[in-house]
Amino acid sequence: MQPDYRFNYSLDTTQKANKLGQKPLLIWITGLSASGKSTLANELDLLFFNNGYKSVVLDGDTLRKGTNSDLGFAETDRTENIRRTAEISKLFLQSGMIVLAPLISPNKIDREMVKNIVGEEYFFMVFLDIDIKICESRDPKGLYAKARRGEIQDFTGIHQQYEKPIDANLTFKDDFNISDAAMTIFNEYKRLL
Amino acid sequence: MQPDYRFNYSLDTTQKANKLGQKPLLIWITGLSASGKSTLANELDLLFFNNGYKSVVLDGDTLRKGTNSDLGFAETDRTENIRRTAEISKLFLQSGMIVLAPLISPNKIDREMVKNIVGEEYFFMVFLDIDIKICESRDPKGLYAKARRGEIQDFTGIHQQYEKPIDANLTFKDDFNISDAAMTIFNEYKRLL
Repeated sequence: MQPDYRFNYSLDTTQKANKLGQKPLLIWITGLSASGKSTLANELDLLFFNNGYKSVVLDGDTLRKGTNSDLGFAETDRTENIRRTAEISKLFLQSGMIVLAPLISPNKIDREMVKNIVGEEYFFMVFLDIDIKICESRDPKGLYAKARRGEIQDFTGIHQQYEKPIDANLTFKDDFNISDAAMTIFNEYKRLL
Repeated sequence: MQPDYRFNYSLDTTQKANKLGQKPLLIWITGLSASGKSTLANELDLLFFNNGYKSVVLDGDTLRKGTNSDLGFAETDRTENIRRTAEISKLFLQSGMIVLAPLISPNKIDREMVKNIVGEEYFFMVFLDIDIKICESRDPKGLYAKARRGEIQDFTGIHQQYEKPIDANLTFKDDFNISDAAMTIFNEYKRLL
């Protein structure tokens, strides 16, 4: 057989997902800083893993150290950060994976962009609707304190508005329990299969 | 149990790879335009798939339509394109996947960067050492013709030098057969397990 240099075949999402035996889904977790997004994403990752599903956490903070290390925190950079995270999510979805993406993503327009990039059927939004006073009282990285002192600009909830989603698939309130929330999302995922 | 907001646990590469039952590896395919990189990557993807391995193709051209759509073809943009592809590869490796990355990547320094980003033990370089006359005679996208007419600048092999790697794990020459090459790489992968 001679080499065929026309790029005319490749495996599609369905074939890869079928092989993994699961439905690819982007679970986008939005909420204020210190609302529990990354903790929930990791709890979910563990839950999926222990139940034989293949998932990946695309954490906003982690991506900023790698793929998105050229970006800052100005409005346009934050949008670009979200756009690239959505595009990377799409690559994982095309491989049949479940993607867990904890990002503040304060703007409705950016969350809409994510949905458009990956496709509505692959998009599942979880909103951690936690009062800013609670988030600020936790402040594990001291970011709220820095923002109040003016050492950080563009901080969501202080300098920048957080636009609460009204179309989230699931919303958790102030006193939610991480393990229970993870289990609720996991059960919802299985209902979608 | 109260929520634990310290980000103190997550699954590591080894655990995820063990679950998938394979060794994560970045197979980086370098060579001139029209040397057969994408065709080989897709043939390999199919071969891995049919043998029960989980792989993904991160094609330079495809990424440029998504994650890297903000980049052009100037020297610094090409390096940034390669850097991000390496970072995205790392995310897939951390999920236990095999990554097939066909990119021209003409500069030694950029290929070294890729190896440093993903880690030497996860890096496997395949060099398609095809004479430029052969590539130019194929020219499936008409790019060589455009470059000769001056309609494309910065074209590798015409305006920009291609630095041949001397440290590739496997090198294929002018008359290589795509199916045979894919099988050779696949067998080499299995030897690494």
